[in-house]
Amino acid sequence: MVQKITVSPREGVALKLKRGQLLKVIDLEGGQVADLLAYRSSDYKEILSTGATIDNNGSLYIGKGDYLFSNRYNPLLLIVEDTVGAHDLLHPPCSPEMYRAQYVIEGEHANCFTSFISVLNKYGLEEKDVVTPFNIFMNTRINVDGRVEVKTPLSKAGDYIVLQAETDLLVAVTACSVEESACNTYGCTAIGLEII
Amino acid sequence: MVQKITVSPREGVALKLKRGQLLKVIDLEGGQVADLLAYRSSDYKEILSTGATIDNNGSLYIGKGDYLFSNRYNPLLLIVEDTVGAHDLLHPPCSPEMYRAQYVIEGEHANCFTSFISVLNKYGLEEKDVVTPFNIFMNTRINVDGRVEVKTPLSKAGDYIVLQAETDLLVAVTACSVEESACNTYGCTAIGLEII
Repeated sequence: MVQKITVSPREGVALKLKRGQLLKVIDLEGGQVADLLAYRSSDYKEILSTGATIDNNGSLYIGKGDYLFSNRYNPLLLIVEDTVGAHDLLHPPCSPEMYRAQYVIEGEHANCFTSFISVLNKYGLEEKDVVTPFNIFMNTRINVDGRVEVKTPLSKAGDYIVLQAETDLLVAVTACSVEESACNTYGCTAIGLEII
Repeated sequence: MVQKITVSPREGVALKLKRGQLLKVIDLEGGQVADLLAYRSSDYKEILSTGATIDNNGSLYIGKGDYLFSNRYNPLLLIVEDTVGAHDLLHPPCSPEMYRAQYVIEGEHANCFTSFISVLNKYGLEEKDVVTPFNIFMNTRINVDGRVEVKTPLSKAGDYIVLQAETDLLVAVTACSVEESACNTYGCTAIGLEII
């Protein structure tokens, strides 16, 4: 049985995956980023690490056939399908402080950091557990001089990535809240999830 | 008065900086990496973030005139001098799990993660607080296809970087423990520190 979940624009969800289960993350309308965090169910101190993922893969770009690793260098998720091929391992989740620093927005603004906290609190997780996510469909390009550019996602409506759980996991996914840049094509839409 | 400290090979130190003080990090023999973490003295939950640093600078490479930012997107340190110009913002500190995953070393091996924990424990900091450091003199090059290569440091004996504290800070510095790769030129040497 396939369980379907919709992540509303600028919101988040948390879910459990058993080892071997698949999580399909779908860009329903196109041009939208989904941030993903993962924690080993048996020990939430073991967290998805984009640093270990870059280190073990020897690359800033990952796609089909590549693993996402934990802070303890164990594989947590395997990318088994990917219709896009452009994702991000570098950017922290958007946060009130990011909006203040980069867009001079002092007031309330939906943000992935708060979305993560709101769905992970019930599992006893807190600020320190919200690390740099795997930013699915986020089209970050690196220039030879090291300059980082965030471009419009390459994902069209219906494009997806499928991740296989390598162990029992708690996973959180947000539909990213940035409307001010190319990151989400200057607007926020929903993300579809299927647990298979 | 200049306070001088030597970080022995494969070890670490912690120190306090007052706002405006300078920390000079010196590669005493050449070809050696120093990992650096920083915490706001008034709230250790505010931690140096290489992700926010990449995000705010828009670059994987930083040098003289660039700031290192916290997880709350505030400037913690300013690079006021840099005789090398090649450092790393991508790699987690070396750890027992990294040596197991990449070098199939199951037994004891000195590592920066343990070096950080051993000097930060007395400040109440723990595993989660040891995030990706600013890896000074670590010569990571990025290819246009996203491939990450760790090359021999460009630093020669006596080369240095000078960091200015933008707020009161707790700082930890390790002399990196990797002997198995080009990271530290296939051997480990000491790092010199001066608090000015």
